[in-house]
Amino acid sequence: MSINSFGHLFRVTTWGESHGPAIGATVDGCPPGVAVDEAMIQHWLDRRKPGQNKYTTQRREPDQVRILSGVFEGITTGTPVQLMIENTDQRSKDYGDIKDKFRPGHADITYYQKYGIRDYRGGGRSSARETASRVAAGGLAREAIKTLAPDLRITGYMVQMGPHQIDRDRFDWNQIEQNPFWVPDANAAMKWADYLDSLRKSGSSVGAVVEVTARNVPPGLGAPVYGKLDTDLAAAMMSINAVKGVEIGEGMSAAMLTGEANADEIFMGNDGKPAYSSNHAGGILGGISTGQDVVVRFAVKPTSSILTPRKTITKAGAETEIITKGRHDPCVGIRAVPVGEAMMACVLLDHMLLHRGQVGKNRGRVG
Amino acid sequence: MSINSFGHLFRVTTWGESHGPAIGATVDGCPPGVAVDEAMIQHWLDRRKPGQNKYTTQRREPDQVRILSGVFEGITTGTPVQLMIENTDQRSKDYGDIKDKFRPGHADITYYQKYGIRDYRGGGRSSARETASRVAAGGLAREAIKTLAPDLRITGYMVQMGPHQIDRDRFDWNQIEQNPFWVPDANAAMKWADYLDSLRKSGSSVGAVVEVTARNVPPGLGAPVYGKLDTDLAAAMMSINAVKGVEIGEGMSAAMLTGEANADEIFMGNDGKPAYSSNHAGGILGGISTGQDVVVRFAVKPTSSILTPRKTITKAGAETEIITKGRHDPCVGIRAVPVGEAMMACVLLDHMLLHRGQVGKNRGRVG
Amino acid sequence: MSINSFGHLFRVTTWGESHGPAIGATVDGCPPGVAVDEAMIQHWLDRRKPGQNKYTTQRREPDQVRILSGVFEGITTGTPVQLMIENTDQRSKDYGDIKDKFRPGHADITYYQKYGIRDYRGGGRSSARETASRVAAGGLAREAIKTLAPDLRITGYMVQMGPHQIDRDRFDWNQIEQNPFWVPDANAAMKWADYLDSLRKSGSSVGAVVEVTARNVPPGLGAPVYGKLDTDLAAAMMSINAVKGVEIGEGMSAAMLTGEANADEIFMGNDGKPAYSSNHAGGILGGISTGQDVVVRFAVKPTSSILTPRKTITKAGAETEIITKGRHDPCVGIRAVPVGEAMMACVLLDHMLLHRGQVGKNRGRVG
Amino acid sequence: MSINSFGHLFRVTTWGESHGPAIGATVDGCPPGVAVDEAMIQHWLDRRKPGQNKYTTQRREPDQVRILSGVFEGITTGTPVQLMIENTDQRSKDYGDIKDKFRPGHADITYYQKYGIRDYRGGGRSSARETASRVAAGGLAREAIKTLAPDLRITGYMVQMGPHQIDRDRFDWNQIEQNPFWVPDANAAMKWADYLDSLRKSGSSVGAVVEVTARNVPPGLGAPVYGKLDTDLAAAMMSINAVKGVEIGEGMSAAMLTGEANADEIFMGNDGKPAYSSNHAGGILGGISTGQDVVVRFAVKPTSSILTPRKTITKAGAETEIITKGRHDPCVGIRAVPVGEAMMACVLLDHMLLHRGQVGKNRGRVG
Repeated sequence: MSINSFGHLFRVTTWGESHGPAIGATVDGCPPGVAVDEAMIQHWLDRRKPGQNKYTTQRREPDQVRILSGVFEGITTGTPVQLMIENTDQRSKDYGDIKDKFRPGHADITYYQKYGIRDYRGGGRSSARETASRVAAGGLAREAIKTLAPDLRITGYMVQMGPHQIDRDRFDWNQIEQNPFWVPDANAAMKWADYLDSLRKSGSSVGAVVEVTARNVPPGLGAPVYGKLDTDLAAAMMSINAVKGVEIGEGMSAAMLTGEANADEIFMGNDGKPAYSSNHAGGILGGISTGQDVVVRFAVKPTSSILTPRKTITKAGAETEIITKGRHDPCVGIRAVPVGEAMMACVLLDHMLLHRGQVGKNRGRVG
Repeated sequence: MSINSFGHLFRVTTWGESHGPAIGATVDGCPPGVAVDEAMIQHWLDRRKPGQNKYTTQRREPDQVRILSGVFEGITTGTPVQLMIENTDQRSKDYGDIKDKFRPGHADITYYQKYGIRDYRGGGRSSARETASRVAAGGLAREAIKTLAPDLRITGYMVQMGPHQIDRDRFDWNQIEQNPFWVPDANAAMKWADYLDSLRKSGSSVGAVVEVTARNVPPGLGAPVYGKLDTDLAAAMMSINAVKGVEIGEGMSAAMLTGEANADEIFMGNDGKPAYSSNHAGGILGGISTGQDVVVRFAVKPTSSILTPRKTITKAGAETEIITKGRHDPCVGIRAVPVGEAMMACVLLDHMLLHRGQVGKNRGRVG
Repeated sequence: MSINSFGHLFRVTTWGESHGPAIGATVDGCPPGVAVDEAMIQHWLDRRKPGQNKYTTQRREPDQVRILSGVFEGITTGTPVQLMIENTDQRSKDYGDIKDKFRPGHADITYYQKYGIRDYRGGGRSSARETASRVAAGGLAREAIKTLAPDLRITGYMVQMGPHQIDRDRFDWNQIEQNPFWVPDANAAMKWADYLDSLRKSGSSVGAVVEVTARNVPPGLGAPVYGKLDTDLAAAMMSINAVKGVEIGEGMSAAMLTGEANADEIFMGNDGKPAYSSNHAGGILGGISTGQDVVVRFAVKPTSSILTPRKTITKAGAETEIITKGRHDPCVGIRAVPVGEAMMACVLLDHMLLHRGQVGKNRGRVG
Repeated sequence: MSINSFGHLFRVTTWGESHGPAIGATVDGCPPGVAVDEAMIQHWLDRRKPGQNKYTTQRREPDQVRILSGVFEGITTGTPVQLMIENTDQRSKDYGDIKDKFRPGHADITYYQKYGIRDYRGGGRSSARETASRVAAGGLAREAIKTLAPDLRITGYMVQMGPHQIDRDRFDWNQIEQNPFWVPDANAAMKWADYLDSLRKSGSSVGAVVEVTARNVPPGLGAPVYGKLDTDLAAAMMSINAVKGVEIGEGMSAAMLTGEANADEIFMGNDGKPAYSSNHAGGILGGISTGQDVVVRFAVKPTSSILTPRKTITKAGAETEIITKGRHDPCVGIRAVPVGEAMMACVLLDHMLLHRGQVGKNRGRVG
């Protein structure tokens, strides 16, 4: 069986294949009364759109979204919102030569083993093209969040490309939109450009680490013990194509800390709300948001579509070699940034709706 | 709202607080005809049981499991299996002194912010005691797996404690049961014993990394794109108390690899099935199992229950200090090993049931 | 697979067999801050308890409920509430003689065909004993409803027993508690007593129709188009043992009406809220509550446990006869009344929580 | 919140409003390898299509379905199937005059009370137009069922229109396709034609009862105790617009039977399988299919869109009158027949998938 939906109350079902007539997201549970139009969704899709610079695949898709339902006279009605993106650039001949071969590192062989079908058209459902549907749904989620938590800000950026990490001391929110890598470190941006350029020319690829931070998140979000906020974020990010690891706050490095170093001490802030001496927890304790920044990171593996021949087998079980020609991304992590933001938006909205449904008015105020 | 269930077809709901009358797991969707008794479940609970050596909390709980439903004449009937563990060692006076203080690094403050309730009895629902219920459910899942995939083996072990990692060249499956840390490296076991002893005496604590490997996993398990096998494993592990990061296969290190290094090349094995030159993917491609070992790792933060005073606040919002006296684990990662195994068992069984429900007989055979 | 849970946010999982050690309900999603204790739940269980008069089975069960989790210092914490009832009167020898025979009209044969297991102990999971767990969960739901809609009243009663219907002109809410049938018509109560007495002596049984009315239900409850309030009520009632039909408002008779007769005209009430000239709709339009009384009816078939021998077969496929000796209910519809009330309570609370999660403050006010 | 999905493994989400750009069904969990094309789905849509004869609304919609995903080279891939129907006949001016009035008996007022939105375009999401999406999904389900149970037959028909019932002695399967009412009684068909004609001319409307029978259903389908086959069928049918009652087998009349009359006795059939002396149970015992015909009936209320003025109120709370001009169905029950068939198909397929996922090979064979 397949499971193509996520979310508890804000429920997103994505559909469509890389080279079918269209892809999209069916969004159920969007609150009514949210002002939204196609341009607002398009804004986020355009950030993800390939072919915008020499560092991403040259496949060109206008990725025009259409709202087919759930919005009347410019506001959501509380009924399902259908977000459809037609596939215009389908050139499936590009992929004909791999029709019977399984691309190593891709899902070709496992989809065949599971479903008995070989959709050779650029990976079909397993293509990263599916993430455009997520970005569209995330755009809708952002508009809904504005009505519930106007100050909440979700920002994704790259913190590592291959061996190169950012310098946290140079971290600058304003730099993120100033370079093709969404990197908050101007210095790193320059170095990475040269590095990626050489990779691209050699037909190779490299992995990356993306970080997504949500600021001004209300405390109390998260549904322990199996719908914890970090649990749902881990699932959301791990479900993105090519992701192999997810971290919250301190992440894997938490293994190296002592209890003294790791415990974020608690004070009373000037605003009369709890404040913390540090944020090793990434804004989440016991699966529930503290009110600090929610910080999640995920590692994206290098795409396996490279020009160097790799050994593989055919459907018939014959050993052979394959070169994945055609358009590809030297660092798919770049295009994963807006996808990570979208997943964060969907998960946070979902938990805001769960939390509204649950808690009394004056409960749980500290101080 | 709370979400205390996980799984799609093998559905586990855990219930109970650290110091209530009992805890347990309500398991719905267990296949009928599985031979199981209390002793088989108890076997796994005993592995997790605290107070077994000086390296874990001295809180003593017999943790006797009772099967209250779903099993008749020694086999499961297909109806819900209720696994109950009574709490015998409740000594809640131990916790009285933190009644109005929020322990830094614990969920005390966020549960209060979410629910407006302060269950000061050792963390109540947010206590790691909840994981005993998971281990019981995992024991049942292991028995069910035997009927579906008799050769499948699930093994958890520690690969890092604080700054100390295992030496992969010394990896020995047989060592895992030979030391209190479930570490597959005899050399590391000795070093870690001294290290942890000094930590314990100083009343400090440290983090760890646990790895869980499943061998002889059938190919085709996983429900893309939001019920991927790695997605569900990431959620399962991140939902465990104190976990801050989850990795599949290469994990976060995938960011540093090139496409050439990362692509696991495919051959035909002597058994006529696909074989791979390496396992950077951790046995999962596109969210579906390849038939290779499924490898997941997770980082456990150090417990925040330490003897060094930390700054915190009270319910009333007054700043104060706290020392968490009483019994604690210098490295909670040790007891997380059987919990990680249990979550792996539940997720794999769940996906075996999903897969059986979906696929035709002769589909998807390679070669 | 089995599905032993119902509800969207107020999620009830019942477990246990007729003659196992215990039965119960695991309730997830109960709002925090609800004052509840075992006596409050026991009150509702006692109404359902068998052996209270000569018209119901003489099986005697104290049906003492225990709250094992989710309640601390007398209020719910927002964590799962475990409601357990131990089975004390198990006398399974009563059932030994039907060990290999399938009782006609019972689930013996279908459970065997589905699960391959013959739990001959009084029907095991398929026994109406399971409904005690529902009544316990419903008792908790009623306490939670008090905090959200204090004026809401849920009342179940019988409107038909075999061929005998109540006289709607004699309908009197106060009579319901005054007779063993929960019938709102004193005249009917007397007639039914004689009728049922003769049935009981002859070892026969008869069906019934139960009606459950909820008064002072807030408008706006229901989640169209597949979680409509009437949809969820139909599922809830049809899931009760022996129920064969469910009606909302006019019910099956709506087929005979014209549009003129059926349309409930709308006025403005003296309270400034919409009022209706009639309630053919049973308080639900388009799956959403109107604010009128929510009225649901369900038909309960006669129990197949009778003293007249019936033809049947054995597990081995041999034709034979069976007489169901021992304790039985001449009209199981009587004991279905509190069960129907409990299901109504669970469904209404569930939709109140869904509705709270969804709607803005000043939206949807008429006038 | 809205819930626009149904099904456990075969999961259907419908979307779209009466006068939006399009409507459709997103179907997740369809088994792979099912041969299907647009013509196969269109066949079922055409049966439901309005304006085919003088007895149904004259609104003309080509209702052309497009498969946008999930099918490759003529077979399903196991990924989501998107079935889209564009709305061509939108003439929303027809509805302009009711812009601020709530139509009695329609969902106008409750949708407004729930969502705070008045989508006056023919009822928007609450319009019976939504059922076209169900019929499309049902068409897909029928093709999938062919691969699992080739002999299974699903047939819907009318058994009552207003006061007129069919004569069961004249029941003839072959008549169903021979008249505009799908009535299995040629005699009734003639009478009903005259009756409905006069209703139509007077601008009135009437209710109906639809019966759907599934033949050659495998035993063992159903997921007790809350996913019983009858429970899911009751929910599926009650979720159809204008349905007010649902019956399984004997239905509400079961209340009038004695245990002797109601118990379907069991024999061994000539085919070596269990056989029954009667089918009061409607093919379902304890929520699980017996192998007999599964029989469900539902009552459809008369449409409230009639030419006689009815009293109502406006959004502002002013009392007024309304006449629903324009196209309408004198007996919407007619068009509910293919919808009931579609829901039966979806529910049966869903439970076949659940059952495949659960049961061992040689279990549960009788004899």
